[in-house]
Amino acid sequence: MSEELDQLQHRLAAFAHERDWERFHTPRNLAALISTEAGELLALFRWDQDALNEQRDRVEEELADVLLGVLRFADVADIDLISAAQRKLRRNAATYPVESTTGPDRPSRL
Amino acid sequence: MSEELDQLQHRLAAFAHERDWERFHTPRNLAALISTEAGELLALFRWDQDALNEQRDRVEEELADVLLGVLRFADVADIDLISAAQRKLRRNAATYPVESTTGPDRPSRL
Amino acid sequence: MSEELDQLQHRLAAFAHERDWERFHTPRNLAALISTEAGELLALFRWDQDALNEQRDRVEEELADVLLGVLRFADVADIDLISAAQRKLRRNAATYPVESTTGPDRPSRL
Amino acid sequence: MSEELDQLQHRLAAFAHERDWERFHTPRNLAALISTEAGELLALFRWDQDALNEQRDRVEEELADVLLGVLRFADVADIDLISAAQRKLRRNAATYPVESTTGPDRPSRL
Repeated sequence: MSEELDQLQHRLAAFAHERDWERFHTPRNLAALISTEAGELLALFRWDQDALNEQRDRVEEELADVLLGVLRFADVADIDLISAAQRKLRRNAATYPVESTTGPDRPSRL
Repeated sequence: MSEELDQLQHRLAAFAHERDWERFHTPRNLAALISTEAGELLALFRWDQDALNEQRDRVEEELADVLLGVLRFADVADIDLISAAQRKLRRNAATYPVESTTGPDRPSRL
Repeated sequence: MSEELDQLQHRLAAFAHERDWERFHTPRNLAALISTEAGELLALFRWDQDALNEQRDRVEEELADVLLGVLRFADVADIDLISAAQRKLRRNAATYPVESTTGPDRPSRL
Repeated sequence: MSEELDQLQHRLAAFAHERDWERFHTPRNLAALISTEAGELLALFRWDQDALNEQRDRVEEELADVLLGVLRFADVADIDLISAAQRKLRRNAATYPVESTTGPDRPSRL
């Protein structure tokens, strides 16, 4: 994985270790964490399209929380994040070929 | 940002551009996407602690979906993800000093 | 629908009307609201199985928030909640016949 | 509680009992269920404001899933849903007095 992500994962692992929190960091607990952090990000946009301008710091913080959860999950579950993301992108390209998805169609994926 | 993340973001941007999907990729829509993808990851663990062993491919795919959503959001919202994550880690370290969070205490963060 | 639910829906509608919030209460916004409220409920259980004993008031409040969101959504979208729930229960009974779902099988639904 | 809700809760309890699923229905598991069902509802609106017209059946079904999850949670956790909802409505009225929340202000609650 990239150096920066590696470093973030190591710091997260050390953070958990120093606080004796490793026992809480099961894949299941981390999946719940990621979901609740994503909910906090969404909450900023609940009624309002302009959260980005009005509360950029909060948005950045909540987005970071989701990323940290994803990195910690990948570490605990021994998943190579970058490879998994590249694989998913290839799969999406096969599922949504350019020819059939342009125009007025509604997309379902990134 | 790291080369691999940069590359993923560029491929996501090209993917959206080729399909004329950029108009759907507002921060608000992407926040909803991230939240629903995180819900799909959590759903794999809903009743069961062992999703990781029984459905590793699905777990990797859903985790990748969350990461791709986060990367696309960061691109559209012009957020430097790695800096935001490093900043959040420093903040967490200040909020949860080692001395006060070890022992039987219940953590609330990564 | 039941008298109590009817009454709650009327109070929610009046609440929105008095504050000129009806324009925010689109089905889409309310779906995002329900999801974020459900995330707040889940957050109470993130690391801990015992939230119910330790923070019963918070749990009741977050559960109520989800119910209120569901009631408001049903009102705005003109959905008969009780009928929809009864229909879904019948569908679940057909999808998961008793004979094939007992034993060590992992359920996916209520 | 209302007769219809009571009846739904009894049918949910019987449904779980017949399939030996009660052991899965802890408050924590049900909180995760509610959150993932709410995510499925939101997913219908992810890119599109018109899910209600285009997929009304799916919307009703997902909304019903959230309600069933809330009813089952309340039963297992011994929460009087209607009372909890009434209490929350009163609290919201105190938090958001009519005078201070009309106009251009952004609401944060139902």
